[in-house]
Amino acid sequence: MSETAPILVEVTRGDRVESRHRGIVAIRDAEGRDVLSIGATAERVFPRSAVKLIQALPLVETGAADAYHFGPRELALACASHGGETLHVETAAAMLARAGRDVSALECGVHWPTAEDARRDLVRAGGRPNALHNNCSGKHAGFVCTACHLGIDPAGYVGYDHPVQSLIRDAMEDVLGVPVDASVAATDGCAIPTYALPLAAFATGFARLATGRGLSAERAAAARTLMDACFAEPFMVAGSDRFCTTVMRLLPGRSFVKTGAEGVFCAAFPELGLGVALKCEDGATRASERMMAAVIAALLSLEGEAAATIARLAQEPVLTRTGVAVGVARPSGFFQERLGATRFN
Amino acid sequence: MSETAPILVEVTRGDRVESRHRGIVAIRDAEGRDVLSIGATAERVFPRSAVKLIQALPLVETGAADAYHFGPRELALACASHGGETLHVETAAAMLARAGRDVSALECGVHWPTAEDARRDLVRAGGRPNALHNNCSGKHAGFVCTACHLGIDPAGYVGYDHPVQSLIRDAMEDVLGVPVDASVAATDGCAIPTYALPLAAFATGFARLATGRGLSAERAAAARTLMDACFAEPFMVAGSDRFCTTVMRLLPGRSFVKTGAEGVFCAAFPELGLGVALKCEDGATRASERMMAAVIAALLSLEGEAAATIARLAQEPVLTRTGVAVGVARPSGFFQERLGATRFN
Repeated sequence: MSETAPILVEVTRGDRVESRHRGIVAIRDAEGRDVLSIGATAERVFPRSAVKLIQALPLVETGAADAYHFGPRELALACASHGGETLHVETAAAMLARAGRDVSALECGVHWPTAEDARRDLVRAGGRPNALHNNCSGKHAGFVCTACHLGIDPAGYVGYDHPVQSLIRDAMEDVLGVPVDASVAATDGCAIPTYALPLAAFATGFARLATGRGLSAERAAAARTLMDACFAEPFMVAGSDRFCTTVMRLLPGRSFVKTGAEGVFCAAFPELGLGVALKCEDGATRASERMMAAVIAALLSLEGEAAATIARLAQEPVLTRTGVAVGVARPSGFFQERLGATRFN
Repeated sequence: MSETAPILVEVTRGDRVESRHRGIVAIRDAEGRDVLSIGATAERVFPRSAVKLIQALPLVETGAADAYHFGPRELALACASHGGETLHVETAAAMLARAGRDVSALECGVHWPTAEDARRDLVRAGGRPNALHNNCSGKHAGFVCTACHLGIDPAGYVGYDHPVQSLIRDAMEDVLGVPVDASVAATDGCAIPTYALPLAAFATGFARLATGRGLSAERAAAARTLMDACFAEPFMVAGSDRFCTTVMRLLPGRSFVKTGAEGVFCAAFPELGLGVALKCEDGATRASERMMAAVIAALLSLEGEAAATIARLAQEPVLTRTGVAVGVARPSGFFQERLGATRFN
């Protein structure tokens, strides 16, 4: 990302802009047609957790999910960046148990729950976090189960050369339509490979996942199963008071959204046949969320509570420690104009 | 801040840049001579907590600090954004007690300690935070004490029209050499006014604070007293494993540094007679800290542990949850070149 990342979000204080966030946005259909490009959308971006749905395709396609009797709750958790709340942790443990494994099989590392209440409950109970509290534990449980179902030793499943990561690369290449290999690989926060690929390819890929167009019938069905699971169990994808959960609870079937670290967001809009990928240049989630909310508001015809909630997500108040709103994080005028001038259907 | 904020910090993953931070930097002497300008340094910036030393001048100048027998520990806390660790909280309470007040006099609002260990200790003890844990409680205790010493009711001391805020405005105008009034005011996170002023004015102001040049003898002495207090008690200014504390513990008398919310940093270098002000466009502390460390490395002749520590602060590793370094947040090549090409003494 270079000079071609325009200012898309402003953070105000009083009547002045205090901070600014730049970014790039791509909206594409399943054939890769350019519906909207803001900034250098050919630039390579690490998608991080925004592509967990693609990373979960092998879990379904190998038959592992069926063999272990995973329902929407487990499949949604396999696509999740969760807050480490009780239901997340228990479900990840249960997934591993179906394959005869436990927390010791996870190679994602440990961090305190990102959900504040869950973190405080754990501290209060005198506990320490384990790998099940890692926001990626559901995805990793899915990797372990995929390996076990295939009769492969899951040990080292985070490695580039492990068969599970090969299956994921194959799925990514197919869905995104671009080469995915070691030359573009780096290591994600949870120790698995992440691949720097053109932002626009992720938009095209999510349009394919949303519509099945350009995918084999088997892959299209697996994508639909995973997306429907996220719509059915939005709490499992993120958690209490989290952007992805709020949006998918509000707009099931209409707006699949998934955040990733360093300001990435991917989304799919089945009724429009469109996919969206965006990246905040500086990696700030406070900006990528406002951007995605502005995109949702521009793409979908919303009314009532849905319209009000998405509008609220697009404009996050800046509060004092006494609870007074003294500013707002909001889409820039430039971004609103570009979205307003685009015909999405 | 507009198009004129160049990329000053890069965050890498593997061999690629994943995210970028832009910013503006001003280095000035006490006469306001331009030693280094990067980006639009005439742009107005809210200094937030980076000017707490200026905000503490009335505490010393009115005689309140002497009347209440405040030593370096209390004065450093009056200039602090602290982590809410035990010594911070107890010292703020003790300051208020000297004026016959308690936590109920604080109008800064409440938040959990920013220091992780202090937060967990409080949760474990079944406690809840109060205004003493607010990172600004020392500054606010200083405001309350200033009012009490002057025989003024401290109630409402956060308001623009309260005499304490008038004294602060007068000091800011004098030190910075620019008008400070309601037309540039907004509300800071701790409920007091903050003023949008040209970035370069803060650099000039900190050069004056460091040297006393351009200030009355009384004001120069008060500034010296406060700066020496921060050098003597660097833990009080921030806390365990915090940037400002680390730098001032390492370079007492040589490098006064103070961070502010939304990516602001101010600094003073007495031996060079220079002041520094910088702002990361997007408000990220991970970037403003790398920028300030790069400035310190460029300005001062450092050896041994000091050189190694500042170099480490300029290059923060990006870690996986398993503890492996997979990238780094570092000054950009452009920033390093501009710093390297400047003669600072």
